[in-house]
Amino acid sequence: MVLLDFSMSPMGKGESVAPYVARCLEVIAASGLDYRLHSMGTTVEGEWDQVFAVVQRCFEALRPDCDRISCNIRVDYRKGNVRRIESKVKHVEELVGRPLKGGGAS
Amino acid sequence: MVLLDFSMSPMGKGESVAPYVARCLEVIAASGLDYRLHSMGTTVEGEWDQVFAVVQRCFEALRPDCDRISCNIRVDYRKGNVRRIESKVKHVEELVGRPLKGGGAS
Amino acid sequence: MVLLDFSMSPMGKGESVAPYVARCLEVIAASGLDYRLHSMGTTVEGEWDQVFAVVQRCFEALRPDCDRISCNIRVDYRKGNVRRIESKVKHVEELVGRPLKGGGAS
Amino acid sequence: MVLLDFSMSPMGKGESVAPYVARCLEVIAASGLDYRLHSMGTTVEGEWDQVFAVVQRCFEALRPDCDRISCNIRVDYRKGNVRRIESKVKHVEELVGRPLKGGGAS
Repeated sequence: MVLLDFSMSPMGKGESVAPYVARCLEVIAASGLDYRLHSMGTTVEGEWDQVFAVVQRCFEALRPDCDRISCNIRVDYRKGNVRRIESKVKHVEELVGRPLKGGGAS
Repeated sequence: MVLLDFSMSPMGKGESVAPYVARCLEVIAASGLDYRLHSMGTTVEGEWDQVFAVVQRCFEALRPDCDRISCNIRVDYRKGNVRRIESKVKHVEELVGRPLKGGGAS
Repeated sequence: MVLLDFSMSPMGKGESVAPYVARCLEVIAASGLDYRLHSMGTTVEGEWDQVFAVVQRCFEALRPDCDRISCNIRVDYRKGNVRRIESKVKHVEELVGRPLKGGGAS
Repeated sequence: MVLLDFSMSPMGKGESVAPYVARCLEVIAASGLDYRLHSMGTTVEGEWDQVFAVVQRCFEALRPDCDRISCNIRVDYRKGNVRRIESKVKHVEELVGRPLKGGGAS
């Protein structure tokens, strides 16, 4: 399974790009994959093909009216079918031994 | 104000690096800055000096026993004193018009 | 056209991952796309589908013996068919007005 | 020693940000540290403090007229005083066993 965290935005569309991020989130939510939006990107969980297909659909959603698009992607693949989008955070919280902001207990 | 999202981990310490991430989270939580842990990194909010000082302290916390360390950082600076670690997510959720995973309503 | 810069490496294979990077470079060179290896990654130029297919083939080349793989990707899409893998660097060098390390004149 | 690869650009300044990249390269070249400009960023080599100080000076160079700035940073720390900005590339090229684009022989 793959956790893919990405941030995609147009250049040349001014300082505020939230409408374009919203368009991507429509695509992500429609994918059926598990995801988490956070302040610096969105994490999607699935197989390699699935998560990269979501990134590509976001790109296709922006391309019609965006002549330049930047994207930054972090990928963490781990063999097996274990889902980790919540468990990674909880495991760190357990190791620290008290609630963390963003953790399961917060 | 700056939002800095980063992921730091040692190489050569095996596949599971959660104990090192936990060590970083101790440093981050002790900084007094607002932060959010997520499955692919941690976002810290503050002035440029403050957020980069936290990254450096995490590095110093790993260095004694880690001979190779990788780090990936995404920075979003916006002029002014407005805090955005929660508002960016809520703004996207408002634009989409329904609850998003990771959003304020979830 | 898309410039995609990426760094991919296994976790849990020790501190030195150059053999895995070399395996990826075999894949990249075989793709027929223009590319540049540098000390912190490799940049590949092509259409969106083409450059991401190369990243996926690198992943497939590592997967048989790597149970955890990290990857970081930076993407710069610009509408049109203009190739930029060399021209972006030269343009910056012209603006600075003297040779830069990594620039066309160095 | 640390290899730090980064890409910094303003948002809200239009599609073409080369003048801002050029301003950063002036700062980087003036630092005295070894560096390489490439089409998707610039890699700087030095101690942790030194390379992050360069990133901060680039930020300070853009801040007067840029109200929003994005930055993406990849860091590779390895214990010891060995410089790697050229040797990492050459080592991969040796492992592949033929010239690579961007490699020492190209």
